[in-house]
Amino acid sequence: MKIAFIGAGRLATNLAPALKRAGGEIVEVWSKTQASAQALASLVGCKACWGRVENATPEADLYLLSVKDSVLKDVISELHAGREHALFAHTAGSLPLSLFAEAGHPRGAVFYPMQTFSKERSVDFARVHFFVEACEPMDCQLLLALARSLTSASNVHETSSAERRRLHLAAVFACNFANHCFALSDDVLRAAGLPFDAMLPLIEETVLKLRELPPAQAQTGPAIRRDENVIGMQRAMLLDQPRLLAVYDTMTRSIQELSDS
Amino acid sequence: MKIAFIGAGRLATNLAPALKRAGGEIVEVWSKTQASAQALASLVGCKACWGRVENATPEADLYLLSVKDSVLKDVISELHAGREHALFAHTAGSLPLSLFAEAGHPRGAVFYPMQTFSKERSVDFARVHFFVEACEPMDCQLLLALARSLTSASNVHETSSAERRRLHLAAVFACNFANHCFALSDDVLRAAGLPFDAMLPLIEETVLKLRELPPAQAQTGPAIRRDENVIGMQRAMLLDQPRLLAVYDTMTRSIQELSDS
Repeated sequence: MKIAFIGAGRLATNLAPALKRAGGEIVEVWSKTQASAQALASLVGCKACWGRVENATPEADLYLLSVKDSVLKDVISELHAGREHALFAHTAGSLPLSLFAEAGHPRGAVFYPMQTFSKERSVDFARVHFFVEACEPMDCQLLLALARSLTSASNVHETSSAERRRLHLAAVFACNFANHCFALSDDVLRAAGLPFDAMLPLIEETVLKLRELPPAQAQTGPAIRRDENVIGMQRAMLLDQPRLLAVYDTMTRSIQELSDS
Repeated sequence: MKIAFIGAGRLATNLAPALKRAGGEIVEVWSKTQASAQALASLVGCKACWGRVENATPEADLYLLSVKDSVLKDVISELHAGREHALFAHTAGSLPLSLFAEAGHPRGAVFYPMQTFSKERSVDFARVHFFVEACEPMDCQLLLALARSLTSASNVHETSSAERRRLHLAAVFACNFANHCFALSDDVLRAAGLPFDAMLPLIEETVLKLRELPPAQAQTGPAIRRDENVIGMQRAMLLDQPRLLAVYDTMTRSIQELSDS
């Protein structure tokens, strides 16, 4: 099965080399800019293509589309002509499978890895969960097998668009919002010339606990203890930083309400 | 140096065995209840003591006080008589060194490990940062050395009460609030019968990134991308859960404002 990557962003930059290592045949990387197409193509040793998406090879069996959500529909439409029988799969958390039919390409699918990607770090897919969906049952089997070439079988799931959208929402809380808590912690320390490094073992232990306890049960800190003394003192330290205070108050209230519920 | 533990909670349950392994001489564990005093005393092989805190041994050189913030001052006062010359050190993030003078025991100190503790898990102190403060320079040296017996020298800091209070506030963001984000993620999934396990590799990768990038630079997700489509869809999914929606909106706004600043 010949695979072409449409898009060479953070997700593709991690997924393409992993598929290649797993024995996948990657024939081309397309990206809008020459530089990014060539960077990823050279990483996996295939042809690079850039400019208009119509320029992409017509000869792949599977097109993995990892472009911005906002342009995906247009990319599908533009790619369709000359590739009517190829399988297209997008990698987005919140876009429905129905997008392919709407864009005029009936053989659509979703291949969604639950992970946060950066170009600086290479993700180990062996523990990543994949969520797969396809218009045709045969295509679903094909993508489930592709996912199983990257991770263990128990991490590969067939999931509806509604479930995937919910998984994406959960990931926003678990990854994006948690990371923002780290950023605000860094802010609090930086203002006083204190090192954020001191937080790393604390953060790592917080995460290790998740393997043994549900997070609501592992909750510690002044909010869950209802320690009004410390809460009052910490609020006072944030009075001149309304953004941090708003987060402090919202999270404190939410922790207390969740433990009451 | 003979060490007595006053309090046998989560912190003491981790710290006492670690000090023992590092060669510390622990002579007694006091706790209000017999069961918890005996549980920790048997773990480190020392005498257990319970009931009134005055019952604690008068013969220790160092009393490590890890009791609730709200009772610490009273515990210091009650412990003072008969132990006038002993060193008392508390382990709290937000309580000032001045508390000891206020409670009538001038030889006070602080021995604050930056970590979250549970009784179920044994913390590896080798990477934990310690923040030390004492009324007397000699006592400060003594506690710095004690911390260095548990962790590497670069993780041991002499810190003022104001700095420690700020570190504690940063820890509330980095640990307590981040953990609450995990709990809300669990909530979102549980409601749909989806497995929180799928989030663990995502969360672990988010944390691994912190070793390479400052958290504000590592931020990903719809908020920082200003992806109004996904934000609108995710808000719609939360309309019947006002608590989660409040967190979603506050965090989204804070992520966007931090990236603008």
